[in-house]
Amino acid sequence: MSLQTPTATTPIILTGDRPTGPLHLGHFVGSLRNRVTYQDQYRQFIMLADAQALTDNMDDIGKVHRNVIEVALDYLAVGIDPAKSTILIQSQIPELAELTFYYLNLVTVARLERNPTVKQEIILRGFERDIPAGFLTYPASQAADISAFKATIVPVGEDQIPMIEQCNEIVRKFNRNAGRDILVECKAIVPEVGRLPGIDGKAKMSKSLGNTINLGASADEIRAAVKMVYTDPLHLKVSDPGHLEGNVAFLYLDAFDTDKEGLAEMKAHYQRGGLGDSVVKKRLEGILQDMLAPIRARREELAKDKGQVMQILKEGTIKAREVAARTTDEVRKALGLSYF
Amino acid sequence: MSLQTPTATTPIILTGDRPTGPLHLGHFVGSLRNRVTYQDQYRQFIMLADAQALTDNMDDIGKVHRNVIEVALDYLAVGIDPAKSTILIQSQIPELAELTFYYLNLVTVARLERNPTVKQEIILRGFERDIPAGFLTYPASQAADISAFKATIVPVGEDQIPMIEQCNEIVRKFNRNAGRDILVECKAIVPEVGRLPGIDGKAKMSKSLGNTINLGASADEIRAAVKMVYTDPLHLKVSDPGHLEGNVAFLYLDAFDTDKEGLAEMKAHYQRGGLGDSVVKKRLEGILQDMLAPIRARREELAKDKGQVMQILKEGTIKAREVAARTTDEVRKALGLSYF
Repeated sequence: MSLQTPTATTPIILTGDRPTGPLHLGHFVGSLRNRVTYQDQYRQFIMLADAQALTDNMDDIGKVHRNVIEVALDYLAVGIDPAKSTILIQSQIPELAELTFYYLNLVTVARLERNPTVKQEIILRGFERDIPAGFLTYPASQAADISAFKATIVPVGEDQIPMIEQCNEIVRKFNRNAGRDILVECKAIVPEVGRLPGIDGKAKMSKSLGNTINLGASADEIRAAVKMVYTDPLHLKVSDPGHLEGNVAFLYLDAFDTDKEGLAEMKAHYQRGGLGDSVVKKRLEGILQDMLAPIRARREELAKDKGQVMQILKEGTIKAREVAARTTDEVRKALGLSYF
Repeated sequence: MSLQTPTATTPIILTGDRPTGPLHLGHFVGSLRNRVTYQDQYRQFIMLADAQALTDNMDDIGKVHRNVIEVALDYLAVGIDPAKSTILIQSQIPELAELTFYYLNLVTVARLERNPTVKQEIILRGFERDIPAGFLTYPASQAADISAFKATIVPVGEDQIPMIEQCNEIVRKFNRNAGRDILVECKAIVPEVGRLPGIDGKAKMSKSLGNTINLGASADEIRAAVKMVYTDPLHLKVSDPGHLEGNVAFLYLDAFDTDKEGLAEMKAHYQRGGLGDSVVKKRLEGILQDMLAPIRARREELAKDKGQVMQILKEGTIKAREVAARTTDEVRKALGLSYF
């Protein structure tokens, strides 16, 4: 089943990114790679969440705008096909803000404050008592995004599951008030390959931690990054036995090396001793260079005509807006907010 | 200066009501009467805040819808002239929700929780810990309504002044981030005649307290209500001296009796003793009957063609939406959320 012939039962996926910087290997493993598969099985909406990105970037307004095109280039470069996936810009669909506005009445402040994802993000971003209201209420916004497209599947990280639960609570409450099922509940799917650690071994590859390898990285940048990849601090001499736990070089090989047999042999050798980090890193670098070279080439090619990329975003947004507008119309009618 | 020839310096007023029930004498004294005057001096937008009314009426959706037309009838019956004032339905201008969405990033949760008006309303409505998020954040929504029309004057009750301060904080913060003055600060004006007490002497005339006289009340309803008007509980016999403090009959006469001299005499007589409540109430009833009869007649006439009233609301909403859309466009551009 492909997007070309979606039926009423084709599952609908909503996914996306906050465009605050170019995407990296962590995104590739955690989501982009899957989206390329999903687009042949599901009706897929991919959202550039620029309005949501503003919740904590109000003081650097240009950043979000600039990165919309960068992230779109990453999407297209990895093989997301606008003929199969609908790529949209969140802010250009005001119906999403309108739905958020209504959903805010369906969730209490206490419930938002109890949301574990929100709690964690508040700590992570150092908001403490100065939480922007838009940040506390972003589960309502996310519920708007998901339900506007009647998405039934939302791929998320483990830590985002409470957001999906809260979305479904809003959906159920709305349908109960309306007396009929207008909105659709969704299911979280957590990708098998979990989060990719940063090159420094920190739990999360993240732009703000400066431990990423970007999808558009040059050959030199890849080489330099692999050199810095964290391995085993106890593996001082080649002859020492090496450890695999927390060894980022091997974690990356697990994620990207398709020669599982060769990799198993290398691991055994490393653990026995007698295998230097440089050999492991050479293998890793080769794999990453091979994998990223065509992505980089496509990205550079696409970047030559940004007008064309913008046109793709425009068409996707128009298509997505039609869907969101239909849902919003149903919501407005159910709320008795329909007059003329 | 009239609406027909508004200049760049014509002050713009935003005012309105939550359509949760027909309007009453309290509204007439506190706002409607003034709006009839304002419409000749200012560019006036009058908003039927149906979306805002949902913040605490999500469980009775039909109520808000039904009352939009009732309140519109009250407006037109008291002399609000759609050729001079622009009457609009909030929910039909999705730009207001969009602006709210952005403004939520410009106000912290702590600041909203400190807002005295919000605090008081939370107690009044018995929300306690179950405050709907839409209720806590309604200052952002109100800031959206005011700033969308670039209103410079907002008539409010004394207790609503913190809302205007919060609106101006958001406006300043937005302009500072944008690096230029896109939004306009507004000034609160508090009407001279304060709040009208309910017929039972309670501080507030309010539908939920059941102590109102509606603008569309029948002659019999007015008569019955005046009979129940709270006077002086110590004034047992006609010969007893009567008190004016908290005496609703005299408070209403203060508000509606244009014969100030006759009223002063009556007050003196009442205080001396020898004047029965029935005489005072007869005077009050006469005045209210005279005042409300033409309003009721116009209201009944207008109610015969609700399609015509809806047409007025539609035209006002279209006109208002053009203004709000222009502002929202400027806001979106300033936030870097403009692409195509």
